[in-house]
Amino acid sequence: MHIRVINPNTTTDMTSAIGEAARLIAAPGTHVTTTQPAHGPVSIESHFDEAISAVGVLEEVLTGEREQVDAYVIACFGDPGLQAARELTRAPVIGIAEAAFHMASLISTRFSIVTTLGRTGIIAEHLLDQYGFRHHCRRVRAAEIPVLDLEENADAALDRVITECQRAKEEDNIGAIVLGCGGMAKLTGQIRDAVGLPVVEGVTAAVKLAEALAGLGLQTSKHGDLAFPRPKSFVGRYEHLSYLDLQSKDRG
Amino acid sequence: MHIRVINPNTTTDMTSAIGEAARLIAAPGTHVTTTQPAHGPVSIESHFDEAISAVGVLEEVLTGEREQVDAYVIACFGDPGLQAARELTRAPVIGIAEAAFHMASLISTRFSIVTTLGRTGIIAEHLLDQYGFRHHCRRVRAAEIPVLDLEENADAALDRVITECQRAKEEDNIGAIVLGCGGMAKLTGQIRDAVGLPVVEGVTAAVKLAEALAGLGLQTSKHGDLAFPRPKSFVGRYEHLSYLDLQSKDRG
Amino acid sequence: MHIRVINPNTTTDMTSAIGEAARLIAAPGTHVTTTQPAHGPVSIESHFDEAISAVGVLEEVLTGEREQVDAYVIACFGDPGLQAARELTRAPVIGIAEAAFHMASLISTRFSIVTTLGRTGIIAEHLLDQYGFRHHCRRVRAAEIPVLDLEENADAALDRVITECQRAKEEDNIGAIVLGCGGMAKLTGQIRDAVGLPVVEGVTAAVKLAEALAGLGLQTSKHGDLAFPRPKSFVGRYEHLSYLDLQSKDRG
Amino acid sequence: MHIRVINPNTTTDMTSAIGEAARLIAAPGTHVTTTQPAHGPVSIESHFDEAISAVGVLEEVLTGEREQVDAYVIACFGDPGLQAARELTRAPVIGIAEAAFHMASLISTRFSIVTTLGRTGIIAEHLLDQYGFRHHCRRVRAAEIPVLDLEENADAALDRVITECQRAKEEDNIGAIVLGCGGMAKLTGQIRDAVGLPVVEGVTAAVKLAEALAGLGLQTSKHGDLAFPRPKSFVGRYEHLSYLDLQSKDRG
Amino acid sequence: MHIRVINPNTTTDMTSAIGEAARLIAAPGTHVTTTQPAHGPVSIESHFDEAISAVGVLEEVLTGEREQVDAYVIACFGDPGLQAARELTRAPVIGIAEAAFHMASLISTRFSIVTTLGRTGIIAEHLLDQYGFRHHCRRVRAAEIPVLDLEENADAALDRVITECQRAKEEDNIGAIVLGCGGMAKLTGQIRDAVGLPVVEGVTAAVKLAEALAGLGLQTSKHGDLAFPRPKSFVGRYEHLSYLDLQSKDRG
Amino acid sequence: MHIRVINPNTTTDMTSAIGEAARLIAAPGTHVTTTQPAHGPVSIESHFDEAISAVGVLEEVLTGEREQVDAYVIACFGDPGLQAARELTRAPVIGIAEAAFHMASLISTRFSIVTTLGRTGIIAEHLLDQYGFRHHCRRVRAAEIPVLDLEENADAALDRVITECQRAKEEDNIGAIVLGCGGMAKLTGQIRDAVGLPVVEGVTAAVKLAEALAGLGLQTSKHGDLAFPRPKSFVGRYEHLSYLDLQSKDRG
Repeated sequence: MHIRVINPNTTTDMTSAIGEAARLIAAPGTHVTTTQPAHGPVSIESHFDEAISAVGVLEEVLTGEREQVDAYVIACFGDPGLQAARELTRAPVIGIAEAAFHMASLISTRFSIVTTLGRTGIIAEHLLDQYGFRHHCRRVRAAEIPVLDLEENADAALDRVITECQRAKEEDNIGAIVLGCGGMAKLTGQIRDAVGLPVVEGVTAAVKLAEALAGLGLQTSKHGDLAFPRPKSFVGRYEHLSYLDLQSKDRG
Repeated sequence: MHIRVINPNTTTDMTSAIGEAARLIAAPGTHVTTTQPAHGPVSIESHFDEAISAVGVLEEVLTGEREQVDAYVIACFGDPGLQAARELTRAPVIGIAEAAFHMASLISTRFSIVTTLGRTGIIAEHLLDQYGFRHHCRRVRAAEIPVLDLEENADAALDRVITECQRAKEEDNIGAIVLGCGGMAKLTGQIRDAVGLPVVEGVTAAVKLAEALAGLGLQTSKHGDLAFPRPKSFVGRYEHLSYLDLQSKDRG
Repeated sequence: MHIRVINPNTTTDMTSAIGEAARLIAAPGTHVTTTQPAHGPVSIESHFDEAISAVGVLEEVLTGEREQVDAYVIACFGDPGLQAARELTRAPVIGIAEAAFHMASLISTRFSIVTTLGRTGIIAEHLLDQYGFRHHCRRVRAAEIPVLDLEENADAALDRVITECQRAKEEDNIGAIVLGCGGMAKLTGQIRDAVGLPVVEGVTAAVKLAEALAGLGLQTSKHGDLAFPRPKSFVGRYEHLSYLDLQSKDRG
Repeated sequence: MHIRVINPNTTTDMTSAIGEAARLIAAPGTHVTTTQPAHGPVSIESHFDEAISAVGVLEEVLTGEREQVDAYVIACFGDPGLQAARELTRAPVIGIAEAAFHMASLISTRFSIVTTLGRTGIIAEHLLDQYGFRHHCRRVRAAEIPVLDLEENADAALDRVITECQRAKEEDNIGAIVLGCGGMAKLTGQIRDAVGLPVVEGVTAAVKLAEALAGLGLQTSKHGDLAFPRPKSFVGRYEHLSYLDLQSKDRG
Repeated sequence: MHIRVINPNTTTDMTSAIGEAARLIAAPGTHVTTTQPAHGPVSIESHFDEAISAVGVLEEVLTGEREQVDAYVIACFGDPGLQAARELTRAPVIGIAEAAFHMASLISTRFSIVTTLGRTGIIAEHLLDQYGFRHHCRRVRAAEIPVLDLEENADAALDRVITECQRAKEEDNIGAIVLGCGGMAKLTGQIRDAVGLPVVEGVTAAVKLAEALAGLGLQTSKHGDLAFPRPKSFVGRYEHLSYLDLQSKDRG
Repeated sequence: MHIRVINPNTTTDMTSAIGEAARLIAAPGTHVTTTQPAHGPVSIESHFDEAISAVGVLEEVLTGEREQVDAYVIACFGDPGLQAARELTRAPVIGIAEAAFHMASLISTRFSIVTTLGRTGIIAEHLLDQYGFRHHCRRVRAAEIPVLDLEENADAALDRVITECQRAKEEDNIGAIVLGCGGMAKLTGQIRDAVGLPVVEGVTAAVKLAEALAGLGLQTSKHGDLAFPRPKSFVGRYEHLSYLDLQSKDRG
């Protein structure tokens, strides 16, 4: 199967790192390709960044559809554009926040999230509510490092993430930690070793969930609220999205 | 005060109709201007449409900031881009879904929503959850009419909306109805007369809430998760969003 | 329009202070009158005080109805008698706790409440649950000052409230503070200046919400559970409430 | 032990009927006395009636305190004045709605409520939320009979209640029915026989819970939010409530 | 009436202590017998222990049915086998966790639980959720003592429980404490005296609730999901459970 | 990897059918073995059956541990013994109800469950609450067929399941259906074809989730409440469970 991992930000180093993490975890028969929007922010650290990045994610899904991609991973912890992406395809689409929450709840009864900047905690809280994991998460913690520090200041960033994970282990009465940023994918092993607790990372979790759904022959439902969008006119720079013929080209 | 009503879709007739409803309800000292994105869908009937439209909404807020607008209304019932827009400004930003929910809960204990297409019901459900009104809403109903029928097929559309509102009145054990589409703003009076129940419409509700916040001297909090986004590079067609200098130009 | 602000306790100094805050915030066309029950407690600091005060509130609403008042504000943070008052009139009735919660949730994602005595925190908790704001409120805090100290010991009381607000700002991961007592209305400006965070006060918030509803032509629903009470006999000191002819005199 | 059953309305026939039901169920060592407010409505069918009746309930508790009553039952399904009454005494105070909910949840996993008038359903909904039984109750149903019809039109009323209970049994996927009015206490046996399902009635349930708490030596907590109210001045017709010396006379 | 108190673990000293607590609290006409499984763990400190003990509990209920027992108490704070036990009999079955939660919520608005080992806290959390008391419980605390220390190291254990209860009183903003282990039944008085707060213990609470239900003539519903299990074959060591003829021997 | 699928009931035909479904879905490198308890009920249709079956499940996990099994699937929709099983091993343990809920929520926003007997619906409701999927499930439906009819009356049973699934599709406003019984595993394809909606079946879902966790190197947390049980004495027929030396033999 062909999984397209979409890094919603436009930093190629992060796309590479995410792609490497994804490839390392992928099953033998899984072909992982990566991409990033042609248009958008270099990192996602706010609702604003997230809203802009969602468009790029959706365009990458449309591209993927022309290439008959089998499943998509949205590799930013806010799951930008997730439900919209699901409307565009029968292929499964998995966000890394939801993937991590699901997996963490299968190996522990309660977890904490360790994310980058505290201001994005509210995004995680909203997702926990929407997905149903509010009571499984004891606390949303932040290491207070900008996302790109995970690339540019890797050692210092890693230290701060590990420190916050250790605090979570000691104070939060939890069984597992969820890493709250796609940029942490490559650090998972080091964090896991340092903290001594199951550490769930979303990119890898999402790849395995995508494989699992594919194995089950389960595709995104086209019955009801995730049906293909009604074709219509888009104007201006989104004119290319006009009258998308998704229904008739549907492989499902 | 100057309220900018942003119609998130690109249909000028709807912008006009929304603007008219807003102006009719505005207080004497309130100056209402309207706008719509230069780029985006002609109507919003899916998560996909909504995600694209959010970018346009945010660009309109940035434009408004340069014009020292005092408050913004996002006039689509999914409240696209709401939290992101709040990050961009100290001015209050009100979504019409939240506005309608708030107002309906002040004059009734339970309400139902009557929206256009059933597939958008899930968007309303997610907002009810996030905002806290899940238990105040008895039922999300759909008249099953495309949004633009409210413009192009106005009479038939009105009939169907009224019929669904009457069903809600008879079956749902409610005190009020919330209209679930900005395009219904101009029909509020007719629906209210036909149904004999308080009918809450979001565009008008949002204008009055914006005036209320302005009167209170309350602005969007810049402490914590709605602080101005960190300036950063955007690439491609969003390059103009790079290094937005919102903090230093802050009037707050 | 004519807004009647009802101070549910019988302390005239507090009625004056609340009235002054209300008048300062009212729109040009709004006529604010104040009143307080002829019968009841001098301050409201318990369920017991609240239950007694509710009767006085309801009698003031009945008086207001004879004077064709356009909207009512119940100026005690427990919103005593709120739903009952709504049954007596088509005019909007706004409690200051609900008003503050609604407004705070429009300018921040999470807030804390700072109230007078800790023992009244449970009342706020019950209201947060009933209204739907449980998850928007991070914490209910108390300055542990008796209500009347806000009048009689104003400086010391203000200090303690500000201190508690500052703690909330530092510890609670919030964007705004809700003041948990009508007696704090006159202190809002000073607290806001000292704390450097949006501070939402209920009396002023309620006045603006009442104006907003009036502007929208929205009245308390008489369909369903807020309909006028069935006329009936009352005995003893409440005999004057017997066979209230609210339905037939209804202006709606 | 001495249980005081307070009928919150002023209809002596209902007080008698409730008292009879209470006495029939009381344990040998339990002395049941009944009372009703000197002041208040003849029946409770709205928030308004309930707010007025709460004062009468509280005055009856104060009277009971002088008589060293051991426990109180508030015999109206809205539990008027419940938390306030608890503040006035160390004796347990039980509302009949809460009593019925607790007992029903011990013999079934899900129940429905059958009450008198539909408009009071919202009161039951608010109590279910506050007490924690929202998910145990499948549906709040109304026979649509005025409360006093249970006295004056007993046969017709009984028929309608039974019919609604049978509907609940057939349609609601429940294990038990909760009767939603103190006036139904005397009908419990007939309803139970006719419906063939456990039928939980609140007056009797509350008497047994009061006995149970007494047997356990458990009294209303005076630590925290149910502590005795702070003594203070009351004016007008409530002057007799001024400076209540509950703390110092405390038997606890 | 005849109440059978089932100690789900196999430690006879604990069965005796629990039985003594039950007998001391029972009403004059109540006959308390105790039992413990012939097969199972000596203490219950994990999901695993609890699952094994549930079978023993069920076998004891079946034995009780042959002896026409009137009500059952399951005397372990995880309420092992509770819903299953209810299927086997019309007699009321009360778990000590639920009993304590119900009683605590009648005398306080918020409580904390003090249990033995922290690892069992998740069991209490799941029960709070299922029963509806999540918001009534401020915190689940553990004294971190093994269950059998309550027998074998009674003094040291008592000290640690009291210390944790005192912390709860000081820090948790509560009105009552729930003891989280059947083995604490005999210590209730000492804890209550030391802590100065209502202390609710489940064995005694369950006995009184069982008496209360019996007094009300309320039995476990056999309509719907608690009906007698369908008779069927069991193999191996559970062969004696095959084709249980509960329905036809039903005394109800 | 080696996945042990445990059929919690003792019907070998069902074990075979479940095993076949599991093997068909397993990845090339996955070795699936099946087992069933030596002791227990032939089908699970009540809390009682479930409680008995849980012991058998746990014994099978202990057997599996001696054989170094890599993951376990508990193939009954009530997930009997799930948390207890997790305590016994570092290997992932997946219940088929949770597996189905997780997968259904990844391809749809709302689903309904179609189970065998209505009386087991409450078990599903409790699991939905505990796992966090309450709001994702619109309705729990029953075909009202005994579990073993899926083996013995396969055609008629299939018809009834399909009919109920079609009703769910038409009436419930859903995107997917969850099959509520392990015995339906072999029918998934036929149901899917007949209903035209994604149909999620738990046995297969659990196998893929187990593979996914294994691929991620994620094991059941031994930190906190899922740690190995404390070794202790068991008496009677469970004596073989005494002093299990899980910690010291731990491969983790």
